[in-house]
Order: sequence, then C-alpha cells, then structure tokens
Amino acid sequence: MSDLEAVLARTEVNLESSLETLFDLVRVPSISTDPAHAADCRKAAQLLADYLARLGFAASVRDTIGHPMVVAHHEGASPDCPHFLFYGHYDVQPVDPLQLWTHPPFEPAIREAANGAKIITGRGTCDDKAQLLTFIEAVRAYKEVRGNLPIRLTVIFEGEEECGSPSAKPFLEANKEELKADYVLVCDTGMWNEDTPSICAGLRGLVGEEIKIFAASHDLHSGGYGGIAANPLHIIGRIVAGLHDDNGRVTLPGFYDGVEETPADLKAVWDGLERGMPHILDRVGLSIPVGEKNRSMLELNWARPTAEVNGISGGYAGEGFKTVIPAEATAKVSFRLVHKQDPIKIRESFRAYVRSKVPADCRVEFVEHGAAPAVQMPFDAPILDKTKQALLGEWSNPAIVTGGGGSIPIVGDFRTILGMDALLVGWGQADDRGHSPNEKYNLSSFQKGTRAWVRIIDAISTP
Amino acid sequence: MSDLEAVLARTEVNLESSLETLFDLVRVPSISTDPAHAADCRKAAQLLADYLARLGFAASVRDTIGHPMVVAHHEGASPDCPHFLFYGHYDVQPVDPLQLWTHPPFEPAIREAANGAKIITGRGTCDDKAQLLTFIEAVRAYKEVRGNLPIRLTVIFEGEEECGSPSAKPFLEANKEELKADYVLVCDTGMWNEDTPSICAGLRGLVGEEIKIFAASHDLHSGGYGGIAANPLHIIGRIVAGLHDDNGRVTLPGFYDGVEETPADLKAVWDGLERGMPHILDRVGLSIPVGEKNRSMLELNWARPTAEVNGISGGYAGEGFKTVIPAEATAKVSFRLVHKQDPIKIRESFRAYVRSKVPADCRVEFVEHGAAPAVQMPFDAPILDKTKQALLGEWSNPAIVTGGGGSIPIVGDFRTILGMDALLVGWGQADDRGHSPNEKYNLSSFQKGTRAWVRIIDAISTP
Repeated sequence: MSDLEAVLARTEVNLESSLETLFDLVRVPSISTDPAHAADCRKAAQLLADYLARLGFAASVRDTIGHPMVVAHHEGASPDCPHFLFYGHYDVQPVDPLQLWTHPPFEPAIREAANGAKIITGRGTCDDKAQLLTFIEAVRAYKEVRGNLPIRLTVIFEGEEECGSPSAKPFLEANKEELKADYVLVCDTGMWNEDTPSICAGLRGLVGEEIKIFAASHDLHSGGYGGIAANPLHIIGRIVAGLHDDNGRVTLPGFYDGVEETPADLKAVWDGLERGMPHILDRVGLSIPVGEKNRSMLELNWARPTAEVNGISGGYAGEGFKTVIPAEATAKVSFRLVHKQDPIKIRESFRAYVRSKVPADCRVEFVEHGAAPAVQMPFDAPILDKTKQALLGEWSNPAIVTGGGGSIPIVGDFRTILGMDALLVGWGQADDRGHSPNEKYNLSSFQKGTRAWVRIIDAISTP
Repeated sequence: MSDLEAVLARTEVNLESSLETLFDLVRVPSISTDPAHAADCRKAAQLLADYLARLGFAASVRDTIGHPMVVAHHEGASPDCPHFLFYGHYDVQPVDPLQLWTHPPFEPAIREAANGAKIITGRGTCDDKAQLLTFIEAVRAYKEVRGNLPIRLTVIFEGEEECGSPSAKPFLEANKEELKADYVLVCDTGMWNEDTPSICAGLRGLVGEEIKIFAASHDLHSGGYGGIAANPLHIIGRIVAGLHDDNGRVTLPGFYDGVEETPADLKAVWDGLERGMPHILDRVGLSIPVGEKNRSMLELNWARPTAEVNGISGGYAGEGFKTVIPAEATAKVSFRLVHKQDPIKIRESFRAYVRSKVPADCRVEFVEHGAAPAVQMPFDAPILDKTKQALLGEWSNPAIVTGGGGSIPIVGDFRTILGMDALLVGWGQADDRGHSPNEKYNLSSFQKGTRAWVRIIDAISTP
C-alpha cells in the first residue's frame, strides 16, 4: 500500500467517528439570520475549534461584530510547504416551513433515499457542515497516518455566510497578516452529477435589501378607506412588477454595467452540457425558464445577474379573511451579481427606483443585508490542473469547469483584502435541497469527498 | 314626565347594568375568520340568546353551515303594530398585530381618551357589539317602563359578518317565513360627526378572493434557480400591479358594468360636505387620495367600487434574510361593489385576469371569501323621514343621508331573499378604529345611541 493509499484507507476506518463529529455539529441549530440562535452559532464555533485543537491545530473562537469566527493554524511537514487557507461556514439557513420536513432538521441520521442511496439528513448537512468536514477529515487521516501535514494550513470557519457575511470585511482587515496564505480552498459547492466532479471558476456576488413601506398611521378598514388611502401592498406590487421587463431583464438603471458577455467558446461548452442533461427545471416541477431570453439556463445561472424577491409580508395572512388596508408592508429582495457589477451602485440604483415608486405621503425604510461583488477565477491557474488530475483518481469522468450560481461573499473579500484566489470544489448534489426543507448530503459524497480532499492535498503539496 | 321621557330616563338608570352586559359580550373573543375561535362564536351567540330570553323574547341559537345565528321574537303591544327585523352581528375582526394594542382587546373597560372623552375599549365594541346593544337596551327600557313593545320585533344576530356571511343565504332561504317583516333595522354604521347623525342609504357589496400561486415543487435557493425558475412572488407582484391603471381605475374587464354615475345634486351635496370637513386622510396620517381622479373622497367611498389587496405572504418573512425562491405565495384581495355590479361576474373576471398572469408551468388555486351585491335604499321611503325627525330629538343637527363605504352582505340578502329594505343608523365615530388595534366606542355613543333608538322605535311604531 502506497503512502497515499494508506491515508485514503484511513478515512474509511475513521468513517464512524467522522459521522459522530458531523452529527454533533448538525445537532446545533446555528441559524445565523435569527438573533434567537446567536448562542447556537457560538456553540457550533466552539465545537469546531475544540475539534481542530484535538487534531493538533492552534485553534480559537474569535469574536466579531456578529457571530464568531473559528481560526486555526497548523504547520506543514517542512517549512517550505505551500500554505493554504481553508474556508467553510458553520451557520445554516432557517428551517421554515418546518411542517414540510420529513425528519426533524436538527436530528441528523443516516437514512435511505427513495432511490436506495444512503443519505445524511438534516439542516446544514450539505450547506456547509458535512462539506467542510470532508476537508477536515482528510487532514485528520494525514495526521493519523503520517503524524504531520504535507501543506501548511490555516483554517477559517465563519458563522455569517447565510446572512451576507457582515463581519467578514472588518475581520479580514484586522487580521490580514495572520490569514494571508498562497491560496484559498473552499468546499461549499457541488458536483456536476454523481459521477462527475466540478471545479467552480466564478462565484456570483450578492446584494440583499429589505424594504419597509409605511402608509397610514394604523391598519385601516377597506370599507372606509379603500380606493382613498395608499395601500403599501399595492406599492410593493408595483415595485416588484417593475423590476423585470417582458424579456426577463432587470430594469434598474445601470444594472448591467460591468456584466461581460460569456466568451463564445465557453458558451458553446455550456450549451453542449445543457443539451446533454435532463431539463434543469424538471427536478423542481417546472418547465419554462423565466430569465433573459436566448440564453441557456446554465449561462443564466453561471454568468448572468438576477433580481429575486425572497419574501413579501403585509396585511392579513391568517386563516380566512380580513378586509384591512395594512399600515405597512415589507419585501426582501436580493440581487446576484456577476463579473464587475458594483454592489454599492446596484444598491443605490435599487433604492432610487424604490423611492420613485413610493407616494409622497408614504415612507420607505431600507435594511441592508450584505453586499459582495462577484469573483472570477483565472482559467489558467496551475492549481486548477493539479486539482483536475487529483480528481481523476476518485472519479473516472474528468472534472468540469463551471461558473457558480450562488454567492460566498467572503471569497470576494479574500481576493479584495488578502489578494488570494480561491479553489472551489465540493461534493453537493443537485437534489441536496440546500436552502429548503429536507436538506441532505449523500453518504457517498461524504466518503468520496473526504478521499478526494486527500488526493487534492497530495497534489497541491508540491509547489 | 311624558311616557316617552320615562323610557328615555330608564336607559340612564340602566346604564351600569347595560355596560355589564356589554363587557360580558366583549370578553368573548368571537373572531369568526379563525376556526380556533368557533367555540367563542357559539358562546357569544348563547350569551345574546340568554339575554334576549330574560327580556321576554322567544330566543334561540340556531345552527348554520358556519357559526350559529341568534333568532328571537317578541310580540307587539297590539296585533297591528308594524313588524321590524333588527339585525346585528356578534362576531369580530382578528386582533393582530396584537402588540399595537394599548389595552388587551378582550378586557373591556371605560377609559379616558386623549381628548378627555370617556371611551369603551375592546375588540368588537364599535363593530358591532355595543352598537347592537344600543338597540336592545332601548327595547329593554320600553319593556321595563311599559311592560310591552310598541312594535312587533324579530331579532337576528349573525356570527359571520366579518367573514363574508357564507351562511346567510341558506339560512334566510330556509327560514323565509319566520324572518319576514316589514322593514329591517340595522345598527352597524357611524355618525357623520359627534354632533350629527347619519342615515345610510346605500351599502357597498363585497367580493373576497384568496389566490394561492404554486410554482416549484419546493422552496429553491436563489443562487441555483434565480433568473430561471418562476417566482410566485413576482407573479403576485404583476397581478397586484396590473389591478389598477394610472388613473386609479380598476382594470378588470367589465368591472364597471352596473356602476351608475352619482346624480349631480347628490354629488354637489357630498362635495360641499367634504369641503366643510377636515381632510379625510388627515386622521390616518396621509394626504394624497389614491383612487379614481376627479372625484371627492366621499364619492369614492360611498358610490364607487374598489379593489384592495388585504394581505400578501410568501417566502421568508422572519428576522434577517433568506435567499429563497418560495414554492408558493398567497394574496387576499377584496372588491367593494356599488349599485348593480354583479359579484359573480366580477369574481369570474378577476379569476380570468389572474389566470392570464400565471405561467403555464405554475398553478393557481382560488379560495372564495364571500360575494354580496351592493344595496341602494330608496331615498323617498317614509321611514327615512320619520327617523330624521326622531333623531332631531337627540341631536340638534339634522341627520345627513349618506352612502356607506363598508359592506354588510346579509343586508343584500334581506333585500334579495326576503324583499325587505333596511334602515341603517349607527353611532360609530370616525376614530373608532373598527378593524384596527385599539378599537373603541364612545360612552356617549352608547348612551345617546340607546336614547336615539328609543325615539326611533317610537317614531316608527305608527304605520
């Protein structure tokens, strides 16, 4: 057995205890958007710091303006080992609507899916607790087999990925020296399919905005004030309806400034991928793409910006009916950004647009929920090739280089503040339901993902 | 002391016990739109039936397909007394948002308002529990002073006024003979101001519709499906935004069929009233009317139809942010109808409009929440004159004849099914907050309203 194979084999020996660690972590409802779960976020951070300390890291939980960061350091086997910063996040999405969960979200277990596959169920399994653990368990196997690591390693786990990472910038600014490494490694993305890994070369940015429209001084009876008094739900309706034109383009002035056309060859590759796969909307029960015309859904997801309303509330939402004109109403709106779109300009453009729709006797308040630019990785970085080679050891299909539809705001900050590019690989599957009820992670993703990290660490350990 | 004055004086002697009866009734949270309060609705009905029985009525609580009706009969002093049907409703509006209430909604008390006036606080005081009791307490005073009533009386109290009166039609159909009288009396409206009573000659109809839009099979991550998958909140936004044109008119095809122009002389009276009063929107913190252009707010409220969105919910509404594309979203929409608008045709037109806005891969479900036509009273009915004269005894300002912005669906059914016209007088004030937090009823409305009913009963007791 080669030395690498011994490390790979060790991950299998460790599986049971690796899952125990994962379950302990998933049991903590570390919902970062909900202040009621602040203590749970800290608990998850402490649990990870303690675990890293047991593996030989110098690990600590570090306060921020929001939820704490976990920072840990480990020396390499020799002083000239390459130095990597591994990033993950321990916070998770809210779980509502809770009644749609088949199993309690914070009681993880191995279960059998309808297709017979073994899955790990629970909120945060796929996003991002099991994913980050595949890397840590690869590190653990190295330590247990060799007693050291072939790379120098800094680990950072944040607790605000799901709420726009407000603490990331100040924390990175304040700890530049400590966190600087050669390259960032991230495990928060997915595979192309179960047999084909994927390396993500771009990540969309994100701007989150909450608008509260205030009209009358109190809720009104629609029999007395209907057709007379401003209705904040009508105002929100007009704001929402005007965000897109009939061709699916976002109407905000300047919105497409900095958006680059996808290179023709890449577009051709993506078009080919899309033709060779089942219709993307099939798996969610839909069939008609709603976005910009004449673009593949892969391009829309990987290289085009969006505006989406994530929530509206106002007026009577209970059983039955109430003929009320509410005094206020709220909408949450988010924008996914690509390339060089400026999140601050887009926020300003959106706010100006909203203000233009609010009558003079009403009032609007804005609440900011994060603003991060997109990140685009260079396609010719040597680490990309090394990683592709390493992945060929675990899956026979070659890895596909893609864009990423989602956003990891801190990855933009790594680039902006610390000058580091990031390698994004992950083992999530299309049906993992990352932000939805019944989130899961395939047991095979956990096992093969851990092994893949062993291979990647080996491949990138030589300069 | 004349015989009438003895009855009037009796209402003052009775005040304390009248208020006890009212408080007992307000303490019952008879919220008809919420199935959780079904038992409370029955309790309120039983309480009223018991009280009427103690006053000498043959009273009973009668089952319906929904909340029960109270029906009670009392003979007149002689067989040729005119026969009236008095109508009120014991159900109340929901109380949310509860945190805006200064006093618990179901713990009624006499309190002092900011202007020094004595007010009765609690949900349902103004709409309609104290109002209906002013009539019953007038009846009680007659009984206690004379031992009989100068009119023959049937009383009906329903428990579904706030949820569209679904049981009214079948109940009236099934009990036509029993409920038929010469005229209906209703106490569920307001005064022009504290010194000027008002008689309502028209009531708008009401169509309530709930629409549920279903898109993806589950909530989606906006990073994965934004700009690709249909967002039901966008669909609802477009539906809401398209309901009105830039001139405040409702866009539904056929919506204005059956709407009559206000006669020029009446319009002139109403315009004069509006010029002589503070700006209607002042009292709710607004200043710009939103409805049809070039019409007074009084005309908009009394003689024009409306479309109002009463609630929207969908996506994430909690603290913070969640980048979700919800699988479904809901809107509650109501229409106030005037003159001969056909509620069924308007419902159909709205549903066709909504369907036209829903993409082929999404689905819409409709939930019906009542449909009632408007009612218009004849301006030359002798009972109108008698009532005006009677009211002059209680207030020195002559009563104003108005339209009514609100809707009392069952009053339409009295006309359609039982062939009866209705006299609508009430003692509510503009600041009573009928469907809002901190509902109240002026103690003076309760006292003078009871006395006014004594006078009206006297005036209409002769054919």
